[in-house]
Amino acid sequence: MSKQTEDFFKNIISHAKEYGFVFPSSEIYDGLSAVYDYGQLGSELKNNLKSYWWKSMVQLNENIVGIDAAIFMHPTTWKASGHVDGFNDPMIDNKDSKKRYRADQLIEDKIDRYEKDGKTDKAAQLQKDLDDALSADDLARLKTIIEEHNIVCPISGTKNWTDVRQFNLMFATQMGAMADGAEQVYLRPETAQGIFVNFLNVQKTGRMKIPFGIAQIGKAFRNEVIARQFIMRMREFEQMEMQFFVRPGSELDWYEKWKETRLKWHLALGADPAKYRFHDHVKLAHYANAAVDVEYQFPFGFKEVEGIHSRTDFDLKQHQEFSGKKLQYFDPEINQSYIPYVIETSIGLDRLFLTVLANCLVQEDLSTEEKQDSRVVLKFHPAIAPVKAAVFPLTKKDGLPEKAREIMAKLKLDYNIQYDEKDSIGKRYRRQDAIGTPFCITVDHQSLEDNTVTIRHRDSMEQERVNADQLEKIIGDFVSMSSLLKKVL
Amino acid sequence: MSKQTEDFFKNIISHAKEYGFVFPSSEIYDGLSAVYDYGQLGSELKNNLKSYWWKSMVQLNENIVGIDAAIFMHPTTWKASGHVDGFNDPMIDNKDSKKRYRADQLIEDKIDRYEKDGKTDKAAQLQKDLDDALSADDLARLKTIIEEHNIVCPISGTKNWTDVRQFNLMFATQMGAMADGAEQVYLRPETAQGIFVNFLNVQKTGRMKIPFGIAQIGKAFRNEVIARQFIMRMREFEQMEMQFFVRPGSELDWYEKWKETRLKWHLALGADPAKYRFHDHVKLAHYANAAVDVEYQFPFGFKEVEGIHSRTDFDLKQHQEFSGKKLQYFDPEINQSYIPYVIETSIGLDRLFLTVLANCLVQEDLSTEEKQDSRVVLKFHPAIAPVKAAVFPLTKKDGLPEKAREIMAKLKLDYNIQYDEKDSIGKRYRRQDAIGTPFCITVDHQSLEDNTVTIRHRDSMEQERVNADQLEKIIGDFVSMSSLLKKVL
Repeated sequence: MSKQTEDFFKNIISHAKEYGFVFPSSEIYDGLSAVYDYGQLGSELKNNLKSYWWKSMVQLNENIVGIDAAIFMHPTTWKASGHVDGFNDPMIDNKDSKKRYRADQLIEDKIDRYEKDGKTDKAAQLQKDLDDALSADDLARLKTIIEEHNIVCPISGTKNWTDVRQFNLMFATQMGAMADGAEQVYLRPETAQGIFVNFLNVQKTGRMKIPFGIAQIGKAFRNEVIARQFIMRMREFEQMEMQFFVRPGSELDWYEKWKETRLKWHLALGADPAKYRFHDHVKLAHYANAAVDVEYQFPFGFKEVEGIHSRTDFDLKQHQEFSGKKLQYFDPEINQSYIPYVIETSIGLDRLFLTVLANCLVQEDLSTEEKQDSRVVLKFHPAIAPVKAAVFPLTKKDGLPEKAREIMAKLKLDYNIQYDEKDSIGKRYRRQDAIGTPFCITVDHQSLEDNTVTIRHRDSMEQERVNADQLEKIIGDFVSMSSLLKKVL
Repeated sequence: MSKQTEDFFKNIISHAKEYGFVFPSSEIYDGLSAVYDYGQLGSELKNNLKSYWWKSMVQLNENIVGIDAAIFMHPTTWKASGHVDGFNDPMIDNKDSKKRYRADQLIEDKIDRYEKDGKTDKAAQLQKDLDDALSADDLARLKTIIEEHNIVCPISGTKNWTDVRQFNLMFATQMGAMADGAEQVYLRPETAQGIFVNFLNVQKTGRMKIPFGIAQIGKAFRNEVIARQFIMRMREFEQMEMQFFVRPGSELDWYEKWKETRLKWHLALGADPAKYRFHDHVKLAHYANAAVDVEYQFPFGFKEVEGIHSRTDFDLKQHQEFSGKKLQYFDPEINQSYIPYVIETSIGLDRLFLTVLANCLVQEDLSTEEKQDSRVVLKFHPAIAPVKAAVFPLTKKDGLPEKAREIMAKLKLDYNIQYDEKDSIGKRYRRQDAIGTPFCITVDHQSLEDNTVTIRHRDSMEQERVNADQLEKIIGDFVSMSSLLKKVL
C-alpha cells in the first residue's frame, strides 16, 4: 500500500469506529481477534444492504425464493461437502517460539521480500514452486521450500521447524448431553450447504420449476489462522448466497447471465465502474467447471467481493450419495429426471460493507477565496443510508422543537429519522454529512406561519423551501428501496 | 393437552412443513435434534416479524438505537455475566441404561403422575420439595427426592442412579490455532451481553442521553438437554432483546411502562387478548428486582413468549469489575456519574413465530345448503404476510398471462408478489388462503379492454372490480409496515 492509500484505509477504520459503524468485538476486554460488532449506524447500513440483496433476488425474480437454515447442521453434511476432509490450511510450528504459521503465508512473505530487494527472478521462481506445491497438496515440498529459502520464525529467528500439517478451518462443538458421549457438530463454514440439503423440500413445497434459485443470508464461521485487514477476513462473517438450479448443459449460459446481473447490482450502488473487474479462477475447485470473482479495488488492492461459480451437480450428487435420498428433479419439458446443475453467486456481506464505506467516504474541499473549509461526507445511495433525514429546529425555543417533532412524527412511520437541536445548523449539517444522511430539514419561525421548511440535499448542499406536507413524497422518491431496485431490473 | 389441542398443534407443525414455513434441519440426514430451518415462506414471515420489532423499537423511538454484535465474544464476558459458573442444569445418569436426564424434569414427571392418579396432596408436597431444593441449589437433596419417590429410569426401569451434577448449557469451541493451545470461546447463550459490552461505545459515539435503549436481533445457542415442542425450545434460536438504560431509582416506573408497551405490541398483530397474560416471576434471578413474562396460550398451555426484566446495574457492574473499564454515565441533569439501571425486554423470535401461526391458522366451514365446503386460511396481519398479493390470469391464453405479468411487474418493486396460472381460480384462491396472502388479483378478458381487474380479499372473500392503476394504493394501505406501526405508537 502506498502511504496515501494506507492513510485512507486507516481513515475508513477510524471513521467507522467514531460514528458507530463498526466496533472491535468485546472491546472493553481488549477485543477478540478477527471478530467485529456493528454499531448503531453499521447495523442499519448492513440491514439495508441485506434488504437490497434479498429483494433483488427474491422479490424481483419470480423463480427465486429465500430460506433461513440453521447454523448447526447434521455433521454428515460436512462429510458429503468435502469440508471434513478437505477444508484445511497447511500449518507449521516453530519449535523454539512455539508459534504456529500458515506455511504458504511464510513463503509468500518471502516472495514479497525478494521483490522489495529487486530479486524479481527469484521471486517469480518461488511463486511458481509454491503454486506447484499447493496444487499437488504436497506438504513435504512446502517444508523443503521453507528450509531451502532459509525462512526463519519472525519471533525466535530460528529455522527449527516441525513438519507441515493440515489444520481444519471448521469450528467444532459438542451437542447434546448423552451419558455415553455428545455428538460433534460444526459451525457452518458456508451457507450454501443449507440450501443444498433443503433443495427437495423447497422445490416440492414451493412448486418450483427449473430453472429456479434459492437465496439465503446468514452467518458462517472459519477458524482463519491469520485474519487481517479489518472486516475483510473475519472468523465470524456473513454470507449472501444464491444457488440457481438449472438443466445440465445450460449451466454456462446461466453462468454468463449471472456474471452480468451481479456486476450490474454492484454498480447500481453508485461506485466508479473502474473500481470493479472480473477475475477468472485459474485453478478451478474440484466441483466447478467455471468460476469468477467480482473484484473491487480496495485500498490494499483488487480483492474478491463476490464469487460466481458453476458448481456442476457436485453438491447434490454428494448429498444424494451420503443421505441415500434421491435429490433429483423431474423435468416435464424433456420428460426426464436428473440432478440439476448449479450456478452459485456468493457475496461476503462484510466485504460488501467495506466496499460501500470505501466508495462513499469522501473528504471534500469547500474552500472559497474568503476562507478554507472542508467536509467529510459519506455519499451512500439514499436507499441504503442508515438515517434517511434529520430534522432540526433552528432554535430550541418559540415552539420550533415542537413543530420539528410534529414533522418527524409523520416521517418516522416510514423512515429512520434523527432529531438534532444541538449547536449551529452548520455543525448539524456536518454531523449528518459524516453519517451519510441524504436530507436535512430545518424548521424556522416561518415554518410556524406557512408550514414550509428548508430541505437541504447532502451531495449538492443545495437548499430549497418546500411545504412540510410534501416531505414524505420528496424524501420517499429518493430513499425507497424500489428506487434502487429499478436500476437492476 | 386435550385430544383437540393436540390435533391442532400437530396441524400447525404439518401445515408449517407442507407450505414451506419450517423444515426439520438437515432433514435428508434424518434431522438434527432441536434445530429447525425456515423455508421459503417461513423466512419471509420471520423477516417481517423482525422488521416489525426493529422498526417499533428503533424507528419509532428517538432514544433507541440498534446494534449487531458478533456471536463470538471475549470469554471473560461470560465469567462476568455469571454464565460460566452458573448457567447449569442439574443432571443425573442411570447406570444401567447409560441415559442422562434433567433431575428436576424427572421429578416433575412424577408430580404429573401423582396428579393424574388423584394424589393431589402428594403432588403439592413434592412440588414444594422440588422448589426448595432448586432454590437452595441442593443437588444431594434432588437425588434423595428421586430415591424417596422411587423414580425409575424410563428406559431401564431401574433406580441405579449416579449423583446429580451440574451441566453447563453453553456451547464451547476452540478459536485460533496456537501451537501452545487455542482459546476456548463460547457461542453466546443470550444476545444481551453484546449490548452491555458495547454500552459505552454506543453511548459516546451515538451521543445518547439517559434514558436510552439499545436493541439487537440475533442468534443465541443453548445446549438444552431435552428440547421439545417443535420450535418452542431449540438449541439454536433467535432473540430480539432491548436493554433500556435508566437513572437508578426510576427503573420500576420504566418497568411498568415497558410491560404495557410490549403487551400492546403483541396485541397489535391481531390476536385475541384473552390468549395473553402477565406472569410475575415468583423467584427472582439474583440480578433482578422485578421480572414478568408475557405468556401466550399455546396449545400446550400458557408459556413465556417475552420476558421483561428489571436487571438493576448487575451486568454493567460486573463488566466494570472484570474489565477494569469504568462503565458509567455522567448525568448532566443531576450533575452526577452512575452505573445506569437496566430494563430488558427479551423475545424469543421462534416462539413469537409459533404464536403467530397458532393465532392465524383457521379452518373455516364454508358449507351452504347446497354443498359442504371448507377452507384453511392463515389470517396474518397483511404487514407480516409472506406474500402480499397473487396475480392470476383467468386463462393461459389470449394475452392474459402477459397482462398479468405487466401488472405484477409494477407491484413487485414494492411487494412480494406471486404469479399463478395453474388450475381453476377457486383452487388458486385456496392455495393463497393457506399461505396467508391478503389479496388475489384476477386478470380476465375485460382487463384487456378497460384495464380493470378483480381483487379478492382473503378474510372476507369479497371481490371487487378496480382499475389496475389503483392496485398499488389499495394494497399498500393494508400491507405497508407503517399501517401496523401506527397501532403501537
